[in-house]
Order: sequence, then structure tokens, then C-alpha cells
Amino acid sequence: MNIGILGTGIVGQTIGSALVNLGHNVRMASRTADNPSARAWTKVTGKEASHGTFAEAAEFGEILFNCTAGMGSLSALQFAKTANLNYKVLIDVANPLDYSRGTPPTLTVCNTDSLGEQIQRAHPLLNVVKTLNYLNCDVMVHPHRVAGSHDAFICGNNANAKATVTLILMEWFGWSSVIDLGDISASRGMEMVIPFWLSLRNKLGTTDFNFKIAK
Amino acid sequence: MNIGILGTGIVGQTIGSALVNLGHNVRMASRTADNPSARAWTKVTGKEASHGTFAEAAEFGEILFNCTAGMGSLSALQFAKTANLNYKVLIDVANPLDYSRGTPPTLTVCNTDSLGEQIQRAHPLLNVVKTLNYLNCDVMVHPHRVAGSHDAFICGNNANAKATVTLILMEWFGWSSVIDLGDISASRGMEMVIPFWLSLRNKLGTTDFNFKIAK
Repeated sequence: MNIGILGTGIVGQTIGSALVNLGHNVRMASRTADNPSARAWTKVTGKEASHGTFAEAAEFGEILFNCTAGMGSLSALQFAKTANLNYKVLIDVANPLDYSRGTPPTLTVCNTDSLGEQIQRAHPLLNVVKTLNYLNCDVMVHPHRVAGSHDAFICGNNANAKATVTLILMEWFGWSSVIDLGDISASRGMEMVIPFWLSLRNKLGTTDFNFKIAK
Repeated sequence: MNIGILGTGIVGQTIGSALVNLGHNVRMASRTADNPSARAWTKVTGKEASHGTFAEAAEFGEILFNCTAGMGSLSALQFAKTANLNYKVLIDVANPLDYSRGTPPTLTVCNTDSLGEQIQRAHPLLNVVKTLNYLNCDVMVHPHRVAGSHDAFICGNNANAKATVTLILMEWFGWSSVIDLGDISASRGMEMVIPFWLSLRNKLGTTDFNFKIAK
């Protein structure tokens, strides 16, 4: 498949490389057509990899990943242009983190709203599916880095889009459990779990962990 | 031991009854000396149970549980009086939930502060330990209601207080794993996990579940 990755950071690169390794064509995007990080990634990743502007990658992708820093996500999607987004699935793994006051980061939106909901409201015909956001990006695409059974979570307004994303998580990335938390408003909880995850990372000294729902 | 329970709702009653069943003397507290819920609980629970004002229960208890509704916790602790709180351990299981806009509730404080931190700041010589807050109260004191291994989390500024609470969780309530997330600022994450827990409850149709950290 042709896949667009919005964002050129470590999350975008890790997901992009995993997708190329699976045989997909991946276009990585930034605000400019020739972002140095994207260019370097394209060079080492091979001929299935390319890069361009947000609009070029959004047009290219049948499936899109939002791997931008959360504070820049709405802007990035505006640059991507509505016509390139409508009716597509956007897998939103971004977090609305604000590091301007140092660490730990705070959330720029939470409690009564979320980044996932903001993106969905800004692009009503885009099928936003929030998933994997609180995880380290290596765990996102290599869940077997974490021992034992553990769960991925998704939410979104469109059932078909969630079915597509569930298949991608299970068939492409190897997730064994995907729990559907409901409509896009569940993004609130999925983003607000970040401070808890950060406390656990500090305690455990690793990012190779995840939640398993015991019941 | 003599234990003070602040709050007369289902959480206070469930924890209070579990403590009486373990052989402890429990005094349940409200703003008034003869709260009807507290009186009814005392009557059915037996001679180890008693009730009184916040100040009376705080004076009585060697260990205190904050089981008030989060929006009333600071006020309840003010009524309990600093002299009755200083140097004691307060096990804070409360959540700062606001139902005034309906369900799901929002948090009255989050992101840059938390109820646990607010309580600790208001009572610097009280040893606040946040724990179990996001769980259903039956699971708090009967963790075996949830199958398999799963984790309790604690945080607080005083290591001795956390050691005491860890013993209480393991020896009295039967928790097999207690993860120390650090100082009281980790309350932020433990309270912000509530919306995620609520989404899971809606999905799973039960409150008998918990998080297990897979690593």
C-alpha cells in the first residue's frame, strides 16, 4: 500500500521503516519538501521510501499516520489540505505534549477535550483513529519487545476505519489484542494516561512496557 | 489498630467493613457527628465500628483513609484539624471528579496539579500516600476479584509511610504487587488515568478489572 507519514521525528521514522520493511511504499512529510531528517531517512531506507510536503504525503497515502508533535498536528493537517484527507483513515499516534516548562511535560489539551477530538472536528470527513499514542515507538511496531500478553487500544467514530486499523495492528505489527474503547472522545483517556506512563517509565527504567487489562 | 475513615459513601463503607473484618477498630467520619449513613453502617457492622465528626475520626485513627468525594476532600481535612493529622499516614483513595456537567465526569484538577498534591500542600506534616484511587472499591480491598496477576500503585513523599501502606495493601488486602511511582506528584498520573478506566469499564461492562504492567 501507499502510506503517508506526517512527521519526520523518531516516531515517524520508526513507523515508516517498519512499513517499508513490510513491503509498503511510504512517503514521509514535513512542512517543507526537502526536510533534512526526511531526506536522510529516505536515503537509508531505500526505494520504497520518499519524502515531501504534508500535502504531497497526504495525497500519496491511502492510509495516513499522524506522527507529528501534538502541538503541531492541527497545523500539519491544515497544510495537508482537506481534499487529500477526506474519507481516508488517519492513525493518530500523537500526544499533545508541552515541554516549555521542562519535564515532565504537561498536556496542551485534556480533561474536557483531546487532540484526537480536535483533529476530528477540524476534518469531519477524515476517519481519525487514535491508537498506540502513549507507547514508545519501538513498542508500537514491535509489540513483542514487551513480554507476555498486553493490549493495544483504539478509538474513533468510524467502525470501518477501526476495523482497518485493528487489522493493521494485528497483521502488520503483530499485536495480539486490540481493545476498542468507543468513539473519538476516548482519546481523552488515551492521552491523559501519558503522565502515568511517564511515572512508570521513570520507575522501571525502560520504555519496553505496556498495560495488560487483567479481568 | 484504630483506623479513621473520612467519608461515609460506598468507598468508605466498603473499606471500613473490610478493616473491621480484619479485626480493626474503625471510626467513620462526616461533617456531622451523627450522619445517617454512618449510623446505619455502624449498626450493621458491629462493635468495632463507630462514627463521628471528621475531627473525632482523625483523632481516633492511627491510620486514616480519605474516602470523601474529591471535591470535598480539602474541606473534610480542614474539619479534621491539623493537630489530629500531623505525622499520621493518610491513605488517599479519592478522585477529584466533577459530575456537574453529567457523565463522564471531568477532573476538578489535573495536568499541572492533583488532589493528592493539594492535600499534601495543605497539610505538610501529614504523610499522604495516594493509592488504589482509580479502582472500584470492592477491588481495592478484594484484589482477587480480578483474575491473574495485576498491580497496585502508590506514591507519596515519605518512604516510611509508603512502606506502611505497602504492608497494608499486601498483608491486609492481599495485593501481590505494589509499584512505588515516586513522590506525591505522581498523583497527577494516578488521577488522570480515570477517564481511561471509565472507557474500559464501559467497554468491559464490569468494574472487576485492573492494570497489569507487562514488561
